[in-house]
Amino acid sequence: MALTVTAVPGLGEIAEGDDLAALIAARVETAAGDVLVVAHKVVSKAEGAVVRLGDVVVTPRAERIAARQGRDPRHVQVILDQSAALVRETDRVLICRTHHGFVCANAGVDASNAARPDDLIVLPADPDASARRLRAALPGRPAVLVTDSFGRAWRQGQVDVAIGCAGLAPTDDWRGRRDAMGRELQATWIGVADQVAAAADLVRGKDSREPAVLVRGLERYVTADDGPGAQALLRPPGEDLFL
Amino acid sequence: MALTVTAVPGLGEIAEGDDLAALIAARVETAAGDVLVVAHKVVSKAEGAVVRLGDVVVTPRAERIAARQGRDPRHVQVILDQSAALVRETDRVLICRTHHGFVCANAGVDASNAARPDDLIVLPADPDASARRLRAALPGRPAVLVTDSFGRAWRQGQVDVAIGCAGLAPTDDWRGRRDAMGRELQATWIGVADQVAAAADLVRGKDSREPAVLVRGLERYVTADDGPGAQALLRPPGEDLFL
Repeated sequence: MALTVTAVPGLGEIAEGDDLAALIAARVETAAGDVLVVAHKVVSKAEGAVVRLGDVVVTPRAERIAARQGRDPRHVQVILDQSAALVRETDRVLICRTHHGFVCANAGVDASNAARPDDLIVLPADPDASARRLRAALPGRPAVLVTDSFGRAWRQGQVDVAIGCAGLAPTDDWRGRRDAMGRELQATWIGVADQVAAAADLVRGKDSREPAVLVRGLERYVTADDGPGAQALLRPPGEDLFL
Repeated sequence: MALTVTAVPGLGEIAEGDDLAALIAARVETAAGDVLVVAHKVVSKAEGAVVRLGDVVVTPRAERIAARQGRDPRHVQVILDQSAALVRETDRVLICRTHHGFVCANAGVDASNAARPDDLIVLPADPDASARRLRAALPGRPAVLVTDSFGRAWRQGQVDVAIGCAGLAPTDDWRGRRDAMGRELQATWIGVADQVAAAADLVRGKDSREPAVLVRGLERYVTADDGPGAQALLRPPGEDLFL
């Protein structure tokens, strides 16, 4: 088996209301069985998932955290607004569980690559729905992943993961199947969508403005229906050992 | 930018003392700038990193854990022998920090794909050294990753990560660099080697006996020297929020 991973030429600066699918389709041919991976920042911008600092009303809780961390209280407020729970607080970062259920630094709120200096980009409200809409609008109806870069417990460096998914099996469950010797594969449950997100990130530089990446060769994981989405990648909080 | 990821035809059953580099070189052409990714199981087998259950001396601690988990005490003992610390214990699994510093389920000890029914495969004693030896022995001196499949906190499914690395920058640090708008990229520190490991896993099935994968197109991350290895991917325990 083999796959190819190719960066789509840059989409240019994205503003609210821009037609991402049309911009992508003008730059790359997509076909059934392909996987189109898009960094969430352009999805957020196109959907208007952007908060202007001047519009933020700061609560006392955000003031207290901001004082401890030496940050702008409005920025901290936006992080709290995006969070269902704070998982850890250090002197520099907040590890949050977002309303979608993703555990990540600062609830995915980020200033870099925002169009205006006082804008913060937040995660799309429903990244699975964003992926489904893009899939439906792209020629050939390729699978679509919406991704973000997350840090990990225990390991240095960030890796891209799927926060939205349409038409790709998010995981491949081999538990109960047997190895080549006939023994049960006990713990083999592959995080397919996250591995595709990671592969896609390798072909773009962080400042290269190439948010879209085309992955070919994964037809066996591409499904006719949109499937359960990236929500299926979330460990239920009650079963999680590190929440 | 683009990359291609191709499974190397299966190496056959590996036994202690087998020359992995020769087996790989007989099946694929490697060149400078390529990255050759190898699942640790064949490295462990070739190096004799295999424990026979009949040779295990069980301690009372392993007996107690095995009783709680309903497992073979000898299997638990092997896990403890491979561990510097237990991070979490559930009724089914032990999350361990291995002597190398990797945090993973059951210290990487696994029975599936072992050659004999009473063998357990353990991680290589020094996976970075394993990667360096393979690199030195492969034509063209490609970068080499040794990988394993790890579960993650918070997310379902396992992803392959680098446990050994030679000649590939394990991370790419963009902190302090600027985005396209000139703002500092605050939290951008890419886990390159882990993303390559994840990409490689997408082209092999878990029972397909294709432990080796060739990745082309990552020349910018391939280095003349062997570099710091996968140890550079470990967050120092004192800085980790989830240990």
